[in-house]
Amino acid sequence: MRIRLDVAYDGTDFHGWAAQPGLRTVEGELSAALVTVLRVPEVALTCAGRTDSGVHARGQVVHTDLPGLPEGAEQLSRRLNGVLGDDVRVHRAVEAPDGFDARFSAIWRRYAYRVADWPEVVDPLRRGQVLARSRPVDEALMNAAALTLLGEHDFAAFCKQREGATTIRNLIDLRWEREPDGLLVAHVRADAFCHSMVRSLVGCLLAVGDGRRSVEWAAEVLAAQRRDSAVTVAPALGLTLEEVAYPPDAELAARVEITRAWRG
Amino acid sequence: MRIRLDVAYDGTDFHGWAAQPGLRTVEGELSAALVTVLRVPEVALTCAGRTDSGVHARGQVVHTDLPGLPEGAEQLSRRLNGVLGDDVRVHRAVEAPDGFDARFSAIWRRYAYRVADWPEVVDPLRRGQVLARSRPVDEALMNAAALTLLGEHDFAAFCKQREGATTIRNLIDLRWEREPDGLLVAHVRADAFCHSMVRSLVGCLLAVGDGRRSVEWAAEVLAAQRRDSAVTVAPALGLTLEEVAYPPDAELAARVEITRAWRG
Repeated sequence: MRIRLDVAYDGTDFHGWAAQPGLRTVEGELSAALVTVLRVPEVALTCAGRTDSGVHARGQVVHTDLPGLPEGAEQLSRRLNGVLGDDVRVHRAVEAPDGFDARFSAIWRRYAYRVADWPEVVDPLRRGQVLARSRPVDEALMNAAALTLLGEHDFAAFCKQREGATTIRNLIDLRWEREPDGLLVAHVRADAFCHSMVRSLVGCLLAVGDGRRSVEWAAEVLAAQRRDSAVTVAPALGLTLEEVAYPPDAELAARVEITRAWRG
Repeated sequence: MRIRLDVAYDGTDFHGWAAQPGLRTVEGELSAALVTVLRVPEVALTCAGRTDSGVHARGQVVHTDLPGLPEGAEQLSRRLNGVLGDDVRVHRAVEAPDGFDARFSAIWRRYAYRVADWPEVVDPLRRGQVLARSRPVDEALMNAAALTLLGEHDFAAFCKQREGATTIRNLIDLRWEREPDGLLVAHVRADAFCHSMVRSLVGCLLAVGDGRRSVEWAAEVLAAQRRDSAVTVAPALGLTLEEVAYPPDAELAARVEITRAWRG
């Protein structure tokens, strides 16, 4: 029986998603909570987006396979929240439809990166989720550069390379919006992201928005297909995994096959 | 020379606004920062809303009288932010117009009180600013009760009484709105608030929204003009001082006279 969990967390006090011995991670805490609540020896979790240390999530999706549930799935989320620290919440627990895989059946992930580039915009109530900068950036320049990165490309220049893994991704959205209160938000959506990709894209565009680099530079970095030391990886605290999308239930299994073939 | 400071803070780690020996308060931290930056022996601060321990502010307004400024007022906010902890920010420092008084020339204060009444709505990223409740409340019932409290009344039933101070206030707005993400927000606006008034109003309405009390009960509490032990003071963490409004400059001094006469 496969269970889907929708999870949100404040990444500040987590060493990222992935379990690591001796460190507090979201996977570690959630696994421990499941073991406690279900009285099973262990559980294996699969998530849609393996967030790094300090990165937040509002729309993380996780699956786990269980022999069965003593109570309904709704009771499970209530009981998990009773055990978990208040910086991680299970918003929903449901039995997953056939073919569902939190990682491989996802069709896209959406992240937001938040920047306060005027002192007036820095909100102490959101200081853990917003990058504060002392100088304003020009969102029109950043959006012009962002347009040149959209579509299916080899994003090796923006990724921490892993042996044997493709860095070809389809970047569906990358745009900066100035919210009514002055906060600058990058909305970033792709079929999937390789390691450090969102923060590298943001770091590249901030250099353009600062006027340190030209609008054309972003496309040059992309075309080079190797990491450029001039691209800074933007700090983790500004980044939040907002949403993961899946196809209709009937297409879940097919989507898993497509993803596996592509990534392999 | 009178300086107006616009200030925001996360109230979590402050024992409220008002300076108290040995405790970390917003007034204490801001005074100390001004003393450091301006190299003066002491400063006196007046604020628009003396927030309690744990209450937040996005739009607090403060004034202080100084012999002069070595640099411009804009430099002052930058230097104060360099000295202050990151849970309090000075968004603006300007020379105040003639007749300005942060407390007595204000025409109204606006607070927001935030409640997450469904587990799905609890956002770990905002957990310090939102009251989480395990049972849903009915905002239509709360809004029906709120309507009966609007206008100029003696709010003694909702105030911690202070000797010789009037508890007559003009409650301009009191309404609950369900935001798109499901968060429930009370918008509360009055000419001024007496001590604990917003949290008592919220506590009263939550009892109505819960179904523990009737819609008519709120007006009965108000009419009794004395504190009712059945009215709970809602927890501080959900409350934020959002905005303080002032009249046009030409009317500032007259407003101070009206307020002083009224409060006296």
